[in-house]
Amino acid sequence: MTTFDQMWDAIAEVGRDPRGGYTRDAWSAADLELREWFRQEAHRRGLAYHEDRNGNQWAWWGDPDAAPGVVTGSHLDSVRRGGAYDGPLGVVSALAAIDTLRESGIRPVRPVGVVVFADEEGARFGVPCVGSRLLTGALHPDAARALADDDGVTLADALRRAGRDPGGLGRDEETLRRIGVFVELHVEQGRSLVHHDAPVGVASGIRPHGRWRFDFRGRADHAGTTRLEDRDDPMLPFARLVCAARDAARRRGALATVGRVRVDPGNANAIPGAVSAWLDARGPAEAAVHSLVEELAEATGGRVTRESWSPAVEFDRALRDRLAEALGGAPVLDTGAGHDAGILAAAGIPSAMVFVRNPTGISHSPEEHAERADCHAGVRALSAALRSALEEGCR
Amino acid sequence: MTTFDQMWDAIAEVGRDPRGGYTRDAWSAADLELREWFRQEAHRRGLAYHEDRNGNQWAWWGDPDAAPGVVTGSHLDSVRRGGAYDGPLGVVSALAAIDTLRESGIRPVRPVGVVVFADEEGARFGVPCVGSRLLTGALHPDAARALADDDGVTLADALRRAGRDPGGLGRDEETLRRIGVFVELHVEQGRSLVHHDAPVGVASGIRPHGRWRFDFRGRADHAGTTRLEDRDDPMLPFARLVCAARDAARRRGALATVGRVRVDPGNANAIPGAVSAWLDARGPAEAAVHSLVEELAEATGGRVTRESWSPAVEFDRALRDRLAEALGGAPVLDTGAGHDAGILAAAGIPSAMVFVRNPTGISHSPEEHAERADCHAGVRALSAALRSALEEGCR
Repeated sequence: MTTFDQMWDAIAEVGRDPRGGYTRDAWSAADLELREWFRQEAHRRGLAYHEDRNGNQWAWWGDPDAAPGVVTGSHLDSVRRGGAYDGPLGVVSALAAIDTLRESGIRPVRPVGVVVFADEEGARFGVPCVGSRLLTGALHPDAARALADDDGVTLADALRRAGRDPGGLGRDEETLRRIGVFVELHVEQGRSLVHHDAPVGVASGIRPHGRWRFDFRGRADHAGTTRLEDRDDPMLPFARLVCAARDAARRRGALATVGRVRVDPGNANAIPGAVSAWLDARGPAEAAVHSLVEELAEATGGRVTRESWSPAVEFDRALRDRLAEALGGAPVLDTGAGHDAGILAAAGIPSAMVFVRNPTGISHSPEEHAERADCHAGVRALSAALRSALEEGCR
Repeated sequence: MTTFDQMWDAIAEVGRDPRGGYTRDAWSAADLELREWFRQEAHRRGLAYHEDRNGNQWAWWGDPDAAPGVVTGSHLDSVRRGGAYDGPLGVVSALAAIDTLRESGIRPVRPVGVVVFADEEGARFGVPCVGSRLLTGALHPDAARALADDDGVTLADALRRAGRDPGGLGRDEETLRRIGVFVELHVEQGRSLVHHDAPVGVASGIRPHGRWRFDFRGRADHAGTTRLEDRDDPMLPFARLVCAARDAARRRGALATVGRVRVDPGNANAIPGAVSAWLDARGPAEAAVHSLVEELAEATGGRVTRESWSPAVEFDRALRDRLAEALGGAPVLDTGAGHDAGILAAAGIPSAMVFVRNPTGISHSPEEHAERADCHAGVRALSAALRSALEEGCR
């Protein structure tokens, strides 16, 4: 069987961005290569491989229709110039954890599944967790099909080009029925485990978060001949948005980030005709996030479109406490990062997360990191978590 | 012979941007198609066609080496999503004006040339007036060859792909010797002629202007997990640049525009690692522009690179007064827009410009416009200007 280290090495060059880090856009060549790698790893283990109607990949140990299964996994796509760990660590650890369970001679009374959720980051089409949202019905298939990347390629187009049928998208009861419990392992995207001096931890919940597009329209004109008083320059309200977002977030103890902007047409010697900016806002409470977005809409006059919204999620308390105990009293942390586990939890599926220590806390960056020893500890923890979930299933 | 209207119609569909306006990047397929159109128009007229070492196209009526010639022309490339007139109006009018002169039976004592300068806008490679700057030596050939577009394609690459030899770039004495006087016709990029109620005018000079890139470095990280106080977000100093530029320009009676920005990597759910912004600054005096850029560098902490600089240009007074007289007392205007005529004037070549009325004053935009009757008036004015320059040459 391929070990954690062998699997990690096998995908280490896929989607490397020449400017640093990884760019593994959903349904890109790199993503398709990773998906094929996963299919082969499932095959190598004799796991029953299946891709659902929403592009999520499944590998089953045992008959997935015999009983609601214990499922683990994560995603393989990345943000642009992201790190190696966000997503793939959960997938590679899931396969390695199953190997560990099988080597221990366990004969699970419930099926065990590994899932790779499609398009978790939303780097290409703008909406995160597309695969899990479609699966649970949180994203309408028409809305998903119409999502477009920067080149105007829709998700429907991209699926067709990848040989998939976009007509199949939508809530998938058959697949949902198979998920008795979901445990996602993920690199921590902060430094709580560093402060706890612990290699792994368990998630308590995910803070509410969403993504909003602010569109500012102006009038394109010549940079050298248009008087300041005659200008309608959309770059100015956009700049005010960036400044006001930081201020509004600070006042609420919330987070607000503008990480993506599109300037149309983007000539150095012309006033732009339009600017679109994406606001990522997260907070301790849903009301704080909503009031932040409202304040910014009023302050800037931008036309605001909500692209995604993830309410506060609290993971299954019994499951989480059992996991923390199984992991020898691992710390319990909450997070501001969205995950497929949060989407499943919001859909009523008992879900949990195991975090692996990140020395710098940096994520969505080439500098994202986890020590190999901590990754191995993560695999052991995930094995213990799966075993615990399986035992729970026996009661 | 093809009339003004026929020529205008012939290029009306080349480089149309599906989002509106025209995108005719230097050395793109659209640009090459326009260049070929020009070559054929020269051929159709029996003009001696020649492309110089810097990619500028020449069509000569008479032997260009017999005496310093009377040259007219402009450029065919555009800003992205620009208008139809900026550039092509000067080229089409130049050919039509030569037709008018020939039809009038004039036998010029000096050669008459039409030029299409390469890459005037700098939309693709960042530096404007590349063809005329190379010709006059204002841009070093090594610097030109190393210019890169957003895809990392250098100007040297682009020239090679277009079948040109980038090794030939550089100051071209042989070609310069042929230019006795240069007259460029251009759509006005403001509303002075509207206020003067005149279809055409003559330029007095070009205000000093330049382009600077501001680079802000930060630290890429996760938008949902990185505390505000731990962030090093380069979007914030960039936003301060946009706001401060407007304020600093207003205080100086200058112009400052940020029309282009590059966010790296541009993930909606991540703090960017770097932001680059292009500042276009112009003013009534050179000192005002320089102090504006210095103030902004200090205020934002950005690393500043000057990408281009065009000192104040005053066009040849005798030539301009003669032209204004030949045009029946046309108004004399200055402008903040850069032109190849300004580059030639700065290199000591007697140069002049004829402006054609623009009802809205809008330019570098799909809304740029000139009434057809004013375009025809422009051709008549340019014919008169050339005739005047030719007569001057006889004295």
